[in-house]
Amino acid sequence: MTNRTRQTGEFETIDRYFAPLTKGFEGAQGLANDTANLTISDGYDAVVTLDTMVAGVHFLPNDPADTIARKLLRVNLSDLASSGAVPKTYFLSLSLPSEISNEWIACFTDGLAADQKIFDVTLGGGDTTSTPGPLSLSLTAIGEAPRDKTIVRSGASAGEDIYVSGTIGDAALALAIIETEGPEQALKMAPALVSRYRIPEPRVLLGPRIRDLATACIDISDGLIADIGHICRASAVGAEITASNVPLSDEGQRILSQHPDWSERPFTGGDDYELLFTVCPEDTDKVSALSGELKLPLTRIGRIISGDSPKLLADSGEAISLAKTGWRHF
Amino acid sequence: MTNRTRQTGEFETIDRYFAPLTKGFEGAQGLANDTANLTISDGYDAVVTLDTMVAGVHFLPNDPADTIARKLLRVNLSDLASSGAVPKTYFLSLSLPSEISNEWIACFTDGLAADQKIFDVTLGGGDTTSTPGPLSLSLTAIGEAPRDKTIVRSGASAGEDIYVSGTIGDAALALAIIETEGPEQALKMAPALVSRYRIPEPRVLLGPRIRDLATACIDISDGLIADIGHICRASAVGAEITASNVPLSDEGQRILSQHPDWSERPFTGGDDYELLFTVCPEDTDKVSALSGELKLPLTRIGRIISGDSPKLLADSGEAISLAKTGWRHF
Repeated sequence: MTNRTRQTGEFETIDRYFAPLTKGFEGAQGLANDTANLTISDGYDAVVTLDTMVAGVHFLPNDPADTIARKLLRVNLSDLASSGAVPKTYFLSLSLPSEISNEWIACFTDGLAADQKIFDVTLGGGDTTSTPGPLSLSLTAIGEAPRDKTIVRSGASAGEDIYVSGTIGDAALALAIIETEGPEQALKMAPALVSRYRIPEPRVLLGPRIRDLATACIDISDGLIADIGHICRASAVGAEITASNVPLSDEGQRILSQHPDWSERPFTGGDDYELLFTVCPEDTDKVSALSGELKLPLTRIGRIISGDSPKLLADSGEAISLAKTGWRHF
Repeated sequence: MTNRTRQTGEFETIDRYFAPLTKGFEGAQGLANDTANLTISDGYDAVVTLDTMVAGVHFLPNDPADTIARKLLRVNLSDLASSGAVPKTYFLSLSLPSEISNEWIACFTDGLAADQKIFDVTLGGGDTTSTPGPLSLSLTAIGEAPRDKTIVRSGASAGEDIYVSGTIGDAALALAIIETEGPEQALKMAPALVSRYRIPEPRVLLGPRIRDLATACIDISDGLIADIGHICRASAVGAEITASNVPLSDEGQRILSQHPDWSERPFTGGDDYELLFTVCPEDTDKVSALSGELKLPLTRIGRIISGDSPKLLADSGEAISLAKTGWRHF
């Protein structure tokens, strides 16, 4: 792990706060080198992903440091899950404005330590630097998957069923409440939604289990319709999703009943970090069995058709036109 | 490769400018997925490093985009070289302020394309995002080295010789001229030094060749004395470096003769990206032979002694005291 441009004492900060996060990963050499060595299992490939988060763009500058850390790690673990990879290690780039204190860093690394236990990953290295701009964080996560067994977006075919894990729209509805009511009031009104928004649940157990089952997979980060659109584009297919089949949480349904004007949000809002995947109809029973085993809802929401883009359908079969289909940050 | 928060059309920018950089690397899937698959050779480990550069901290905001790109890639390749790894692929995180144009991105990716050919590496993936702050770039480079054969900082022992590759201080002297004369005048006064500062020469061929020869190795990024200090700390040894043995370039010597007040710079200035390594005295001939084969000067500048920190010595044997030993950015 390297350090540039911060005060004397920053090497000590790395030793004190970051080096302990490498415990158990010998190849990280306690961050004493600029490089880390990672052994990939025989017959497996390394699977690599990278996500960047900037204060004021991807999170609020005064969000708790531990939730920022956990979200950063989890969105990357979600990417690994979508390809069927098992996470192993991660590398951090931190660009820190001068107002970041050691207390903030302690809270940030506490969040990472908590998630390292949950997800069985270990810090491998990184770089800290100062910045005159906003707090900026980048994380490269590395996992592994059996060679030629990673799931891609381009494998979907007409006639296959489309599934999602968990519930959809919770994070988008949380953001809508935060925007209108402020974060403290939002936490009182819809604690489960706000928690989902702040600390998503990457489906790291599901991903590796659908390597032989899913013909295509993506994690929902841009929004349900945008992300099925990515599968359509990569696979050169169309998709029909029946709006009423899209699973909502109890709290999500309650908020939507109070705010019918937010009805599009579950389809267009991002940050769900559920897996969206396609399966041959003859494998329906395998999906049900897996759902039971993992105690995780896996819901059929539509099917792949010929075409080149997704459609959202009402129960009548009519297409629902959406005001926006992409993903926007606050 | 993912994209967040920039204008519609940014997916097209990724397709147009970045996807071509993945050509020949099937596992990158043309940036169509959020993950890339990387096969590591049997019996080898993945070796990973990460460096971040921020405009106004690590480079000047109006530096040419292609040289920024090449320096970012090369400093990471230098880290891989210092561990004896052969580079394979890299992942980019770009946080782009709104004033960054497509022309800038075209120039940036041209720089990467040029270096990909020179160093036989291929883009694997990344993330682009917008930022209200300065241009911020992070690069994760992944190489490979035979398992248990990477070179670390902690292997030096008393009695071993200390070598450096190439010439020392060129980048630091370039920076001194740029600071006093401005970049255009500096380019006229000392073109070779300025070129070395802008586009360092990572010793990617040397690193893998000293896996069995060097007992410890580091690349000189913080400055000669600071970096031998890192080896001293990691290896629990001291070091004596004879100032007059430190190899300077012809242009460096000329500039120093005009600016004797800069005499410390070669020892304390950063950004050389030469390799600094320790070798048992009985392997002297092997070092000479390798130097001849690679047509790269490898100069003995001192030796490891017992102790815990480095000393810079005059020819008289007296210790030279330095005003600063660490590394500072402009």
